[in-house]
Amino acid sequence: MPLWTVHHTPGIFTDEEKRQLASRIADHYEQVGLPRFYVVTLFHETRPEDFHVGGEPTSAGVRIAIDHIARSNPDRESRRRTATWIKGMLRPFLERHAGLHWEFHVDETSEDLWMINGIAPPPAGSDAERLWAASNATSPY
Amino acid sequence: MPLWTVHHTPGIFTDEEKRQLASRIADHYEQVGLPRFYVVTLFHETRPEDFHVGGEPTSAGVRIAIDHIARSNPDRESRRRTATWIKGMLRPFLERHAGLHWEFHVDETSEDLWMINGIAPPPAGSDAERLWAASNATSPY
Amino acid sequence: MPLWTVHHTPGIFTDEEKRQLASRIADHYEQVGLPRFYVVTLFHETRPEDFHVGGEPTSAGVRIAIDHIARSNPDRESRRRTATWIKGMLRPFLERHAGLHWEFHVDETSEDLWMINGIAPPPAGSDAERLWAASNATSPY
Repeated sequence: MPLWTVHHTPGIFTDEEKRQLASRIADHYEQVGLPRFYVVTLFHETRPEDFHVGGEPTSAGVRIAIDHIARSNPDRESRRRTATWIKGMLRPFLERHAGLHWEFHVDETSEDLWMINGIAPPPAGSDAERLWAASNATSPY
Repeated sequence: MPLWTVHHTPGIFTDEEKRQLASRIADHYEQVGLPRFYVVTLFHETRPEDFHVGGEPTSAGVRIAIDHIARSNPDRESRRRTATWIKGMLRPFLERHAGLHWEFHVDETSEDLWMINGIAPPPAGSDAERLWAASNATSPY
Repeated sequence: MPLWTVHHTPGIFTDEEKRQLASRIADHYEQVGLPRFYVVTLFHETRPEDFHVGGEPTSAGVRIAIDHIARSNPDRESRRRTATWIKGMLRPFLERHAGLHWEFHVDETSEDLWMINGIAPPPAGSDAERLWAASNATSPY
């Protein structure tokens, strides 16, 4: 958690820009207390012939599917704040492209059905989670 | 919303057939009131060695994962009608392939955790949504 | 159901190891009563430049997203048992790689929004499901 899957048409990101975006995303989750290594960002370049918006192939599209596992939002206001927070990570990278369709959505799934390196991660806000964050690695707890 | 991700082995769809299927899918959502550009369809060609059904590589498989965000079904009957509606979009493209394993499932996620071009889309059935549908584009509201 | 999507950096699995892992996964679900062909496993090789853990490209990563549709867990203990069960399928294939980041999570979605070959699969534990399992194929019911 979180898992970001970034589908994009060719020419939107250089490898260096991918690295910058992935790092910025990790920064944001780290700032709210998550171990940095929880954040996995996958980029998936997709040909215009395989990327259709409104039934037409598109030459400039970014569609991001995000899975949130370690934290979930209790109510609508909280969910909307989360969406705005995510928008803030993306705008510097995407608003520079005129005519781009960019879209994201988040799914929230159960922390009980999740393991890293074969270990169920510690509860949110626990001492063990703080240790994982400080060491940026899994450890028995 | 909706996001369709179509994993398929080689030789199932030509680029023109992909375009026809994506257009047909967009037609269906447009007919129930959604802005056409809400519909994103991604195709992902997968080698038989990377596409296993029942533990065996398959030379003819289509596996579709669909995310519904802007609308959700209130009960079982409604969900089943939605599945039948989706089947109707796919059959003309898939039943022609003898021996094909084809399968889809839909996940329903929160409309609050979703943005297009940095804007939270308008509520379902609102005047703003109708305007987005008529103009087939996002706009402030 | 289930759908396993295995994102991995190059060099983690040979094609033969992919086949062995997919077969082992299918074995496990078959042992709990599911038709073997319900199990679809997709592998998706991803360049290090497209696979970021904690904001850095990684040369050894496996990130598995699993969708469970035909069965869902009623409570936390059940979900944790499921996660442990999944870990058992993966460890023989992944623990041999020193320094690998490997992670999985499971999403549970509605069985009502699911079809195989255009047919809504039979209810869990029904005679029709047992027939599908025994014949390892769909049939009208």
